[in-house]
Parts: sequence; structure tokens; C-alpha cells
Amino acid sequence: MQSMEVWVTYASTYSYLTVSRVGALAQARGVTLAWRPFSLAAIRDALKLPFPFPPDSPKTAYMWLDVERRARLLGLQYRRPDTYPVNAMQTARVALVGERDGWCQAFTEHVFRLHWVDGRLIGTDDNLRTALGSLGLDADVVIAQAWSQDITDRLEQRSAEAMSRGIFGAPSFIVNGELFWGDDRLEIALDRATGK
Amino acid sequence: MQSMEVWVTYASTYSYLTVSRVGALAQARGVTLAWRPFSLAAIRDALKLPFPFPPDSPKTAYMWLDVERRARLLGLQYRRPDTYPVNAMQTARVALVGERDGWCQAFTEHVFRLHWVDGRLIGTDDNLRTALGSLGLDADVVIAQAWSQDITDRLEQRSAEAMSRGIFGAPSFIVNGELFWGDDRLEIALDRATGK
Repeated sequence: MQSMEVWVTYASTYSYLTVSRVGALAQARGVTLAWRPFSLAAIRDALKLPFPFPPDSPKTAYMWLDVERRARLLGLQYRRPDTYPVNAMQTARVALVGERDGWCQAFTEHVFRLHWVDGRLIGTDDNLRTALGSLGLDADVVIAQAWSQDITDRLEQRSAEAMSRGIFGAPSFIVNGELFWGDDRLEIALDRATGK
Repeated sequence: MQSMEVWVTYASTYSYLTVSRVGALAQARGVTLAWRPFSLAAIRDALKLPFPFPPDSPKTAYMWLDVERRARLLGLQYRRPDTYPVNAMQTARVALVGERDGWCQAFTEHVFRLHWVDGRLIGTDDNLRTALGSLGLDADVVIAQAWSQDITDRLEQRSAEAMSRGIFGAPSFIVNGELFWGDDRLEIALDRATGK
């Protein structure tokens, strides 16, 4: 069975489009997903990349137009979040706990759905604790683990790995070492994973 | 008959993918193209956008990977140009003469093909004069017109129009006022032009 790495950040708007559909698409094609939650903060600083969507920029206005248009085309529910950007660092740390413990995909799908469908913002205690509770996890325990040295080390290693593999944005996909960036490259990444 | 505006810059790598195929795709769907050659230089300065693909950035390395991958997927010829970035200001000015005089599409297709297939770089006299000669035009006459006050005025108006319409990159498409950015949005822009 082929495998595809899915690199997502929780502050990324386009990651919603991917997170909402990659599970079903991969399953239908027999592709195993390796979830790689990460943060772009350190990478952006190191590469001197600007925050991708600064306020009052036409590029930001277009991003909202395009994300909604793609959500409609893909048949996804869409409600524009009230707040942008969000601080998703704690959510990324919790996702690393989930990667370690085997519930990263379910957690990720849940926090994105809360954010983009129910208006319960990623980065808030409400979003985080609701998602963890839905998975039957003890939120206090998991959040304490999220700030442990083990997860701090994993987060730093993940950022270093992202940079060494040429990742500069999210979502990104890696298949046999080949990089794909952006939700609109999801299908061809999956095609590569199935040998097409 | 529906119409679609095609905004291209001659220094843009992804514009090659669009220029090589938009003519045939539009014709097959009965969509009329309104060519809008422009320059991003003034817009980038005004919006404080960085040059999109700085040297030694992983984003630049990915751009080359992705452009070639898409060219292969789309069945286009591809030869990576020896020089990047190129200075395409004179080419943009000549394209504005072509827009005024009705040969913009043929000129644009020609200079991109020379650059991306034959290794004759956009921005060089060789590229420009070869393209103009192929169209049966007197290169000296056209280049003199390209630096006339009329074309300077058109170039400035075009930059102002681009900014007022929210354009920040190339290629871009506009259908009934709706903006689409990027070669990978060409098909949905054409769909919109045909009422889909």
C-alpha cells in the first residue's frame, strides 16, 4: 500500500479544503496517510517569507474569494471564520500528541470542522476541548502533554525536517520524496501515490 | 459570445502554461479572449509584495518543479530557460502595441514559445525581433512605437486598472468582474465564461 505524507498547519485556510476530503479520497484509492502536523512560524522567520495573507492586501481578499469558491465547487460546507489570523500553536502541539498517540487525523478533521462549519475558532479553548472531548480524551491531560519537553522536541524536529525537505507552506504533500504544495495539488499527489 | 480577460506578464513562469493553451481552450468553448498585457513591477512596489520567486528560496525550487510537472501533465513542450528572472518590460510594451493593433495573442504565444521551447529568452532583442518578424511586422517601427507616449500612458493605465481590480499576480483572468488567479484556475474561469 502506498503512503502519502500530509503536512498541515492549523492556521492555514486552504488546509481546510484538504483536511475535509483527504481521508475519503485516500481511502478510496488505498493510500495510507502519514499525518505531519507542523507550524510555519519558524520556517517563515528563517526564510524571511511574509505572513502569506496580510490584512488589507488584495491577495488576502482574493484568498477569501478563492477558498469559498473552491469549497463550493468541492461540495464542502463553508462559513467564513470571524477571526483571521488565528493563533494555532497550542492546537499544533496537541496534534503532535495525536500523531504520537494515533488520533491525529480524527482530531484534525474535528478542529477544522468546528472552525469552518460551526464558527468555533481554532486556537480557542472551546474548539480544542470540544474536539478532544469528542474523541473521548481528557483535555487537561492532553494539553499538559502538549507542553511537555517531548512535544517541544517533536515540534522543533518537525520544523527542521520541513525546512530540510523544502516545505514553505501548507498544506503540502510528499510522496516518495516528491513535494506537492497546495490543496489544488492534492489529486495529483494521490495519483502519484497510486503509481499514476 | 462570452468574453474572458487574460492578464499576462512576460516575466511570469506560470503564464507559459496559460499562454500555450488558452487560445485553443477558449476557441473550443466559444469564449472570446480580451488580452490584457501588463507589468507587475509597479503593483509589487505599491503592495510591498516581494518578488515572487527570490533566488535560493525553497519556494523558487518548488516553482521550477511544479511548472515542469504541470507542463508534462498538460502535454506542453518544456525547456527550462537559462536565465531567471528576465527583464520583460520592453516585451510588455510591445504587447500593448499588439493589443492596440490586434496582434497581441499571436505575439504573446510566439515570445513564450521561443522562451520555453527554443531557449531564446524573453526580453532579448533576438526573441522580440524574431517574434515580430514572424508576424510580418517591422521590428524597428514597432519597437519605436513601444516607447511612445501613447504606450507609456497605456502601461500606466493598465497598472492602475490592475490594482483597482484586485490583481496582484499573473496569469489572472476576469469574467464578468470575477477574478481568478493562476494557470490552475484557467478551467474554472472558462467554465464561468460559458455559464457553468
